[in-house]
Amino acid sequence: MIPRYSRPDMAAIWTPESRFRIWFEIEAHATDALAKLGVVPQEAAARIWEADTAAGPFDVARIDAIEAETKHDVIAFLTHVAERTGPEARFLHQGMTSSDVLDTCLAVQLARASDILIADLDRLLEVLKRRAFEHKLTPTIGRSHGIHAEPVTFGLKLAQAYAEFDRNRTRLVAARADVATCAISGAVGTFANIDPFVEEYVAGKLGLSVEPVSTQVIPRDRHAMFFATLGVIASSIERLATEVRHLQRTEVLEAEEYFSPGQKGSSAMPHKRNPVLTENLTGLARMVRGYVTPALENVALWHERDISHSSVERYIGPDATITLDFALARLTGVIDKLLVYPARMQKNLDRMGGLVHSQRVLLALTQAGVSREDAYRLVQRNAMKVWESDGALSLMDLLKADPEVGAALPAEAIEARFDLDYHYKHVDTIFARVFGEAGDGRA
Amino acid sequence: MIPRYSRPDMAAIWTPESRFRIWFEIEAHATDALAKLGVVPQEAAARIWEADTAAGPFDVARIDAIEAETKHDVIAFLTHVAERTGPEARFLHQGMTSSDVLDTCLAVQLARASDILIADLDRLLEVLKRRAFEHKLTPTIGRSHGIHAEPVTFGLKLAQAYAEFDRNRTRLVAARADVATCAISGAVGTFANIDPFVEEYVAGKLGLSVEPVSTQVIPRDRHAMFFATLGVIASSIERLATEVRHLQRTEVLEAEEYFSPGQKGSSAMPHKRNPVLTENLTGLARMVRGYVTPALENVALWHERDISHSSVERYIGPDATITLDFALARLTGVIDKLLVYPARMQKNLDRMGGLVHSQRVLLALTQAGVSREDAYRLVQRNAMKVWESDGALSLMDLLKADPEVGAALPAEAIEARFDLDYHYKHVDTIFARVFGEAGDGRA
Amino acid sequence: MIPRYSRPDMAAIWTPESRFRIWFEIEAHATDALAKLGVVPQEAAARIWEADTAAGPFDVARIDAIEAETKHDVIAFLTHVAERTGPEARFLHQGMTSSDVLDTCLAVQLARASDILIADLDRLLEVLKRRAFEHKLTPTIGRSHGIHAEPVTFGLKLAQAYAEFDRNRTRLVAARADVATCAISGAVGTFANIDPFVEEYVAGKLGLSVEPVSTQVIPRDRHAMFFATLGVIASSIERLATEVRHLQRTEVLEAEEYFSPGQKGSSAMPHKRNPVLTENLTGLARMVRGYVTPALENVALWHERDISHSSVERYIGPDATITLDFALARLTGVIDKLLVYPARMQKNLDRMGGLVHSQRVLLALTQAGVSREDAYRLVQRNAMKVWESDGALSLMDLLKADPEVGAALPAEAIEARFDLDYHYKHVDTIFARVFGEAGDGRA
Amino acid sequence: MIPRYSRPDMAAIWTPESRFRIWFEIEAHATDALAKLGVVPQEAAARIWEADTAAGPFDVARIDAIEAETKHDVIAFLTHVAERTGPEARFLHQGMTSSDVLDTCLAVQLARASDILIADLDRLLEVLKRRAFEHKLTPTIGRSHGIHAEPVTFGLKLAQAYAEFDRNRTRLVAARADVATCAISGAVGTFANIDPFVEEYVAGKLGLSVEPVSTQVIPRDRHAMFFATLGVIASSIERLATEVRHLQRTEVLEAEEYFSPGQKGSSAMPHKRNPVLTENLTGLARMVRGYVTPALENVALWHERDISHSSVERYIGPDATITLDFALARLTGVIDKLLVYPARMQKNLDRMGGLVHSQRVLLALTQAGVSREDAYRLVQRNAMKVWESDGALSLMDLLKADPEVGAALPAEAIEARFDLDYHYKHVDTIFARVFGEAGDGRA
Repeated sequence: MIPRYSRPDMAAIWTPESRFRIWFEIEAHATDALAKLGVVPQEAAARIWEADTAAGPFDVARIDAIEAETKHDVIAFLTHVAERTGPEARFLHQGMTSSDVLDTCLAVQLARASDILIADLDRLLEVLKRRAFEHKLTPTIGRSHGIHAEPVTFGLKLAQAYAEFDRNRTRLVAARADVATCAISGAVGTFANIDPFVEEYVAGKLGLSVEPVSTQVIPRDRHAMFFATLGVIASSIERLATEVRHLQRTEVLEAEEYFSPGQKGSSAMPHKRNPVLTENLTGLARMVRGYVTPALENVALWHERDISHSSVERYIGPDATITLDFALARLTGVIDKLLVYPARMQKNLDRMGGLVHSQRVLLALTQAGVSREDAYRLVQRNAMKVWESDGALSLMDLLKADPEVGAALPAEAIEARFDLDYHYKHVDTIFARVFGEAGDGRA
Repeated sequence: MIPRYSRPDMAAIWTPESRFRIWFEIEAHATDALAKLGVVPQEAAARIWEADTAAGPFDVARIDAIEAETKHDVIAFLTHVAERTGPEARFLHQGMTSSDVLDTCLAVQLARASDILIADLDRLLEVLKRRAFEHKLTPTIGRSHGIHAEPVTFGLKLAQAYAEFDRNRTRLVAARADVATCAISGAVGTFANIDPFVEEYVAGKLGLSVEPVSTQVIPRDRHAMFFATLGVIASSIERLATEVRHLQRTEVLEAEEYFSPGQKGSSAMPHKRNPVLTENLTGLARMVRGYVTPALENVALWHERDISHSSVERYIGPDATITLDFALARLTGVIDKLLVYPARMQKNLDRMGGLVHSQRVLLALTQAGVSREDAYRLVQRNAMKVWESDGALSLMDLLKADPEVGAALPAEAIEARFDLDYHYKHVDTIFARVFGEAGDGRA
Repeated sequence: MIPRYSRPDMAAIWTPESRFRIWFEIEAHATDALAKLGVVPQEAAARIWEADTAAGPFDVARIDAIEAETKHDVIAFLTHVAERTGPEARFLHQGMTSSDVLDTCLAVQLARASDILIADLDRLLEVLKRRAFEHKLTPTIGRSHGIHAEPVTFGLKLAQAYAEFDRNRTRLVAARADVATCAISGAVGTFANIDPFVEEYVAGKLGLSVEPVSTQVIPRDRHAMFFATLGVIASSIERLATEVRHLQRTEVLEAEEYFSPGQKGSSAMPHKRNPVLTENLTGLARMVRGYVTPALENVALWHERDISHSSVERYIGPDATITLDFALARLTGVIDKLLVYPARMQKNLDRMGGLVHSQRVLLALTQAGVSREDAYRLVQRNAMKVWESDGALSLMDLLKADPEVGAALPAEAIEARFDLDYHYKHVDTIFARVFGEAGDGRA
Repeated sequence: MIPRYSRPDMAAIWTPESRFRIWFEIEAHATDALAKLGVVPQEAAARIWEADTAAGPFDVARIDAIEAETKHDVIAFLTHVAERTGPEARFLHQGMTSSDVLDTCLAVQLARASDILIADLDRLLEVLKRRAFEHKLTPTIGRSHGIHAEPVTFGLKLAQAYAEFDRNRTRLVAARADVATCAISGAVGTFANIDPFVEEYVAGKLGLSVEPVSTQVIPRDRHAMFFATLGVIASSIERLATEVRHLQRTEVLEAEEYFSPGQKGSSAMPHKRNPVLTENLTGLARMVRGYVTPALENVALWHERDISHSSVERYIGPDATITLDFALARLTGVIDKLLVYPARMQKNLDRMGGLVHSQRVLLALTQAGVSREDAYRLVQRNAMKVWESDGALSLMDLLKADPEVGAALPAEAIEARFDLDYHYKHVDTIFARVFGEAGDGRA
């Protein structure tokens, strides 16, 4: 966990205090369930909650000290709770195993982390939608291979990002469901010493579903799917960040990250405005992706469990969720405040001397009866001249002057192919697909 | 693609012949749609299908030869189709871009590959279920950390695998939906030269959904999610394979891969029966996992597309699906024919002198009023003696002889804690959760 | 192995024919060594070579057929050799285990693959050096964050690439040494049934070093290091490929991949010249990197070996080396024939109105006694005006007109800071470091 | 950075205090060099050191506060230094760029981290060597595929680990050299505003080599190689950890992690002694491996640099080195105190009824003139009986009773093949190879 890349709500989920609080709730709810089954006295169960309220926050340092001696975290915690609670504490943890507490706690933490990430995505989607509509018809050049292709609008770029992050939201909701399960099934998952009712009861109290069959632990394919999903979201972040970085290049400069007055771009070159936020996002995406493979390697635990997954999760549980939360918030800020330069977009569109319209001419020629091969040759020989002139020559002028082209297409027919609006006639259709007819983002 | 690890149906999806066939169908359906729109003559569209039927399979070598010259695969293909079709071929590919064909083709291939993999999972689930019920109450020791813990049944192990692969089936169905989209939207996704109706029409014919907004290509977050899902499934394969490898260890030997009469385990040691199939599956899982990161790196294409994803997909499209198909089938065979040794399981269960029942005694002591700390101490001091005797001493005997234990629990109360059936009273509950009350596998 | 991305010499290493040939040499040399030790008859050892010469190439189909029955590749091979050789074949494989053959064969294959890759690097280095000297003083803008920074030369960019690939060559030579070991030590590496002399003898004949201590197999940390090194080289390829892709962007266009006359850039847009080779290299780099993790996961084999590494190596042995060989050759071709546009480089250099010289002015101001903070403020306020004019204004003019600047620096002192050659005074030093004083590339 | 998995010396390298201290040294040494060149006054350079000594530790909170405003870390630092130093501070950072400081600082940190890791490896090697010699001739069964193969010694297992970590040491020394370079070359690496002498001077003072050619940054292939090497070492840790985990399995129990008196293995099962340290190491290895891919993805920075690598390095710089340091130390402790049970090893060796000697019989039969095929059949039919008896039958007895075997080998010849020492006759040879003739570990 890097403080620089952390936001407080997400970080709070992963503090020792939060963890012990969740442990306590699992244990206390389980004791309530046992009381309902008549296994432990109702009064003892009630006393456990009261004593906790009276005692306040857990003493993390004290728990650490006990663990240093016992080398077992849950025993250390229970010992501390016993110190706060008195003799009723012996009714805690009846028939449970440490993993019942640890794994259910992790489920609560990952579910809460998911809720924050889903809210992050919602904010990003909102911003993307607003700016997509703002630039729905702002002309800009579409590029394949980094080379000018045909016109698009800047709003279409953002609509694509919207659709992508909307898919990511759907995936994350599914991944949340995958990890939000409760297992209180004892040492090897057989409920030998604890009734399945306890698991159901605690699951209900914590908003989790019941793990249908556990071993000592909740199976790690669930967590693998969760972290893999975060890796996909991170890759989408990298994609949009890379788009901004490209647009901010000196020669392109169609958009820029917001540059605050006090900011210095370089210790040496005072004129520089660097896309450092999106470059940073590119790096953060690498990290979140890097956590996918350890999570996948965690699946194949030995028999009813080994503890190799635990250290991995101590890293990637916080690191992946905190980093992704930060990255989504940063990306939202970048898009929200992105400086967009329509004039420069138009200037870039124009700089290729009309080459972007070449395909329309090609089609017009074939529709006028020229073979595809010949049409391609005719367009290409003129296009190459424009290309080599670096946009100084005009494709329209050259085509009009080419007798072979003129034999198939009159001048006005050529001119008609250089109309920008022609390219935007289906923008409404696409926006309706992405944002819904009513623009409510759920097409 | 390694022939040794390929099965014919999956491999067939990825041959040049299949690819060209799908390309043709996309192009011909698109021309039909254009004919319906009145853009091209109905007769030309019909002629294209007829000429194809008359011409038979595509001449892959001829297409390769044209590509060697033009250095463009779709142009080479279209040139070849023109050779087979005659002048009507000029109505093919109107307003389309190469990626419309390539990406929609990949969607068809991945959807078909998914169908095979889903069927593979269904067969695996069927076998897991049959063997789970066969061994529903076959006692075996549960192990955490590789150390004997408490009794489970062998059927429970298989029920866990069933539940895990059932989750994987759900994930794969979602991943299939993610990649099964059709994009026919032209050079930069604006439908500038092609009506969205064509995309809808072709999508319907090919069983795909419509890509709501594409650039030049279908966005690669879809494919990333698909391959990440395969990586999770592979990790589950590794888990079950690792279980079998452990069970077949000489000292454990509770199960063995089927060993055919003609098979030789070792060129040097004729007595050996090695779990080579599950070891092989462990390696194959590594490969399928290894394809996840390249797929994630493919997401951040530049602007409206770059072609860096293409070479990656030439490898991982076939390699990931073919390998996973082979691995699922191999795993199904391993489980189907797995030699299970209940007598050896019982022998292993007994070898620890009853230590596996220690927790029950611990609970009985606390329920009899002994503090948790004291109960732990009493059980542990006797358990340690059994442990150090390597199972020669009996925990039950030692506990009965321990006066401090006896002060809390009479002998018959101790004996009652060493009953194996006690551990299996909730097996029905778990099976109902996993396989449904009716055992139909959809709880 | 993708034929499209394979070159014949590297692919030949991985054919069944090559593998069986190497197996035979290992077995026959080992039998020679046993004959020298008096364990087998000299005549039998000689007869084995003679029979092989007489029999010609191995019958791969026959060996496959035997393996289908025995399910053991080395036994199948030995059976086939016995068919060709006669009764002397019984002296083959004495005291050896299959892995002695398989692992030593893999060592030979990886060593040969390394030799090809080292030669590939040598050719790339030669081309980089030639073009670096060609453009040693070709001015071009240096960019950080994609933003114009200060002038460099195009030759310096290539010198950097040279230095990087020269490091990669050193790493690959080390990685080759790591994998080029011979193990003939029997079933568990104890030489129980074979004298260590045999291992030394065969190692000498095959140009390998002796594995100091093996289990049943050569330890896989060696292979992990090898494939990790290929992953680093692939990443360097991606870096140089990315540079070319950036330089070829429409708005930058300082260099282009060579475009052959018959080539078509796009089925739709005839004017397009796309950097498809370097985009392809970017994808290939992802694949070679993707093989690193499976290789790392192969290290932790169980006890004296399990066979999980084998399937992984069947993929990555050929795929990583063949892909990297192809990629290095392709990159060499790209650099060799790269179209470089010095005029455009100069034009881009000039477009920022002299902003690239801002740091020199900053330094001049501080040297003239202005505080760093004030100097920064003075330069930045003028630089921002130039920036916002998109290069229409000249920084030199603005600075001369700024009275606060003028108070510290006379006009001629300002002018002196806008000299391009100033930036190139240490190019010779850098070239000498990279290529040696004599330009021989070994500084 | 997880405190639980951190050791103080390594963690100290990565504190803000350490970083600022190194930054200061780079800046102050550079100013000294400039003073030697006559660019800045000697007294100013001296004053900078004196002021620092007088001022004491840096005020991290103050620097953070300045950075919050300027959003630039090096400017914030220099501003703070100016506050401590007075007007002479304006002579700092002359002609340098931020990356000169940041990258050279990272080089110092990684070099220091390497030194700790090399010392860690030395301690591990020392412990492995001691215990290898202690158990040089302790018989134990060698296992391939988890199945009993032939006898080895426990010392041989440790000698293998020694050789592997010795290779890792060599690799780490090379990786250290790769990252320990100094770049002080200005904004784009041309030394435009700073003489190369400064770089050489600072490199010498800090024990680094000179970066032959940098851009704005030190090329990241160096760091990629470094982290890839850590990934290989982590994989070797996983291998040895996995060995211990296997040996500690209940049914095997040939060795155990040291179990301290106060330790509790399970909150539920007091008899359990779990190999939690080596399971933990398995997880830590996954993390260190997980950092390799982000490091590889960092190589392809855009043009003369982008800053995407920076966030990645903020994570993996500390996390990879701290985790690996902890893991090496933990592994050293595990091996140092490993409880080894030779009696149990012998018991396991004996349990297969002599099957482990089957290959020797096979060889004896072929040497007695039986064809390899027949010999294999004879041994296998007896071996299978022993196998199916779970070691109750004796292979020696069965072979003596088999008339076909008896026809080729007399009883005493059979008996001679069951001698354990036969397998150990080359242990000295192997130890000499690994540890040197004198056992000094440098063969």
